[in-house]
Amino acid sequence: MAEEKKVTFNISKEASFSDWFTEIIKDAELADLRYNVKGFVVFMPWAVMAMEKMYDYYEKALQKKGHKPFWFPTVIPEKNFKVEKEHVEGFTPEVFWVTEYGAGEKLEEKLALRPTSETAFYQMFAHWIRSYKDLPFKTYQRAQVFRHETEATRPFMRSREFHWIETHNAFATAKDAEKQVKEDMQTTKEVMWEVFGIPFIFFKRPAWDTFKGAESTFAADSLAPSGRFIQQPSTHLLGQNFAKPFNVKFIDKKGNEQYCFMTCYGPAISRIFASLIAVHGDDNGLVFPWEVAPKQIVIVPVFTRKEEANKAVLKKAKSLEKKLGKQFDVLLDADMEKSIGEKFYYWEMKGIPIRLELGPIELAEESVLLFRRDTKQKTKVKVKDLKKKIKETGKDISIKLKEKAAKLFEGNIVEANSLEELKKVINQKKIAKINFCSVDWNGEKCSLTIREETGAAVRGVRVDEIEEPKGNCIICGQKAGNVVYVAKQY
Amino acid sequence: MAEEKKVTFNISKEASFSDWFTEIIKDAELADLRYNVKGFVVFMPWAVMAMEKMYDYYEKALQKKGHKPFWFPTVIPEKNFKVEKEHVEGFTPEVFWVTEYGAGEKLEEKLALRPTSETAFYQMFAHWIRSYKDLPFKTYQRAQVFRHETEATRPFMRSREFHWIETHNAFATAKDAEKQVKEDMQTTKEVMWEVFGIPFIFFKRPAWDTFKGAESTFAADSLAPSGRFIQQPSTHLLGQNFAKPFNVKFIDKKGNEQYCFMTCYGPAISRIFASLIAVHGDDNGLVFPWEVAPKQIVIVPVFTRKEEANKAVLKKAKSLEKKLGKQFDVLLDADMEKSIGEKFYYWEMKGIPIRLELGPIELAEESVLLFRRDTKQKTKVKVKDLKKKIKETGKDISIKLKEKAAKLFEGNIVEANSLEELKKVINQKKIAKINFCSVDWNGEKCSLTIREETGAAVRGVRVDEIEEPKGNCIICGQKAGNVVYVAKQY
Repeated sequence: MAEEKKVTFNISKEASFSDWFTEIIKDAELADLRYNVKGFVVFMPWAVMAMEKMYDYYEKALQKKGHKPFWFPTVIPEKNFKVEKEHVEGFTPEVFWVTEYGAGEKLEEKLALRPTSETAFYQMFAHWIRSYKDLPFKTYQRAQVFRHETEATRPFMRSREFHWIETHNAFATAKDAEKQVKEDMQTTKEVMWEVFGIPFIFFKRPAWDTFKGAESTFAADSLAPSGRFIQQPSTHLLGQNFAKPFNVKFIDKKGNEQYCFMTCYGPAISRIFASLIAVHGDDNGLVFPWEVAPKQIVIVPVFTRKEEANKAVLKKAKSLEKKLGKQFDVLLDADMEKSIGEKFYYWEMKGIPIRLELGPIELAEESVLLFRRDTKQKTKVKVKDLKKKIKETGKDISIKLKEKAAKLFEGNIVEANSLEELKKVINQKKIAKINFCSVDWNGEKCSLTIREETGAAVRGVRVDEIEEPKGNCIICGQKAGNVVYVAKQY
Repeated sequence: MAEEKKVTFNISKEASFSDWFTEIIKDAELADLRYNVKGFVVFMPWAVMAMEKMYDYYEKALQKKGHKPFWFPTVIPEKNFKVEKEHVEGFTPEVFWVTEYGAGEKLEEKLALRPTSETAFYQMFAHWIRSYKDLPFKTYQRAQVFRHETEATRPFMRSREFHWIETHNAFATAKDAEKQVKEDMQTTKEVMWEVFGIPFIFFKRPAWDTFKGAESTFAADSLAPSGRFIQQPSTHLLGQNFAKPFNVKFIDKKGNEQYCFMTCYGPAISRIFASLIAVHGDDNGLVFPWEVAPKQIVIVPVFTRKEEANKAVLKKAKSLEKKLGKQFDVLLDADMEKSIGEKFYYWEMKGIPIRLELGPIELAEESVLLFRRDTKQKTKVKVKDLKKKIKETGKDISIKLKEKAAKLFEGNIVEANSLEELKKVINQKKIAKINFCSVDWNGEKCSLTIREETGAAVRGVRVDEIEEPKGNCIICGQKAGNVVYVAKQY
């Protein structure tokens, strides 16, 4: 057996998350930042394979709930943007514009690279929706969106092109729209928590942080080990704000024309991937949950100096690859030039949930060594029991990752009863829970004070629990209207 | 049973293909042309669901052959385009340019919406490829591309944004690159013919019709019922034309630096979808092969005036939907307001391969009526045999569709021995096979004569069969160097 090399990836995720994140993206080949347009990166196969699985889970969940898939054009004419006043103000600073074609010919009208697609979808809704029988009208598309971010970009978390899903939906009543927003939160739970294992809290965002054009915004915040929130899917009650200017109407049962109530929801797969690796990774690299691992199993044959034995081991490894490949995503690393230690550390860093080791001893015993990435435990398993054991282990890995993630998340919330305490909590990389005057516009001033003093933001009011405020706002001292959470964010 | 309505879709596909194509896109809701940017359409759920399945088959086939999935940025900086001279000349007229952001701020550099991604991929290949051990280096991405077409656009066939796959590959030798091109043709056969059932011929394109920047181009032509070719995937030998300016090099086994040989291949899913519906559809609408049908089975309960019986029928239909839904893509049409005839014709027009009818009689007999869309035959099947029968029928539908398509294709090729005969063949909406002087640049003049006189184009030399030319070029009378095929195209 070749001599084992030193661990190639060993960075404390908790102590230096930013370094950890930057390095793992490079070492595990998740994205390449050398593409020569600022803020745009190349997403590499190891990340793409996982994100394709994530798309698949999300799309299936949405289709099950009645959302139909569309592919809209990537470009939206400028005039559409101008239809909804708040929306145009909110998004224009970030829009990339297509203005020319060919050798510098001007287009008749400027075209936006979609930063989001309300203004593309809703003009078509006006064609498609006629009667109450067409409602609810639930759509989605898998697409890239483009935003000329002025803040520093960071691969997966914030870049100028990202990969997402957007749903756009129309309803007969405000109540139906509210039900949809609840369903969106449920879908987030079913996919992002139950499958991807990423804990989050849904907040109703303060008025000043509501999606431009929406009546209210509900957003899921997940947590990075740096104590900062990463905003994940948000769902928006649009009321009739878009229906009126885009003329999205229906004839109700009594024969009267009515405007629709609308909602939209936007899970950004490339951003959820950032949370996925941030939440589950450890100091030696990535740790993928079983369901979305680019490869679920790596088979590493253990070679010796006996050529004959190596042949037999390789043959068995190949037959295992074939057999298991019918059911799982399997990789065989039979490279003769690399040492066994090198291979172990490499695939651990890449986060493959299960490694199977197979040498002459195991061959003789008709067994393999099964190593699980999360706990780093090794177990000897009889080949005849292998499929069953793999299934159990895969399932257990995901369960354990979830438990670990949930514990970490909950331990990070701390109450703060004064600005001084708040500063301390934020400095300790925790999330603060405070009594706050109001998440309506008249609380904005206090939120600005918080931002200036701590660099953190008021994330809003928790949706899953009703929390009664006690006493006064810790900033202005007026009677507290809400309990809110405060944290830094990416 | 409600009275049957008249057939809603009945257009002769052969006699008036253009009308047929336009109408079916509208009636079956495949694309909506009312989007307010010229040349851009909205792809609707019925088409998207089929195209997602098509992507899936194609991507799996490519991954099996060692292509790794990437997501590149949608934008390419102008300077990249200028690197390969022929490429820039060929593509610049069609490029959309992003020049501004926000409220009219100019970008530092113009960004192209990718019309194809050689100039994005190969600058990164220069980073990624170091040694002969990295070769072959085989990639692909699923993406949209953008071309400011001046020719009339037609949904799916030619539009300013289309959905495709592009592979980009680097090799140590010219021979390896040639092998890749052969593999691409084989992949096309495995997916486009064997799964989608679309017949085609691979042609080596004439010099004047070679991809800009390539040494040679091999393209699959499929046939529309109008007698026009629809160009399908093409694969290109790029030689070292891109490797040199983009500096894609490797160290060979002897330690010498060498330029890579490269190939690329571009199956356009939205365009293959055009061939799919054109080839398999009939006068009553779409006919989907089993494998890519958006829904494979529609269950239509047959209601009577007896409410009690209707309840039982509906219950059974729902249980069938659930049972079959585990294995197949199933739809239940239990709408009480539509007549049975209306439903039948609607789902026939939409092309669902199998319809199951279930009324009180069938319920009593524990059977269903199974209708297959391609032959319009109805068979009574016992519920206990249903799964097996569905599998058999699904398979048989795809086989029969392929047989029919192949027969039609072959019957359309006619030899022409003079310009007069050629004109006649083209007027009869057929493909002409002719003796031709040369597919090198010195044959271009004759090809222009053909275009002027017939409106058709020289498609090139057949790749799958070696055809020896006899006699002289039917245009210029010089000794024929090639047998070529001539047809109109979309």
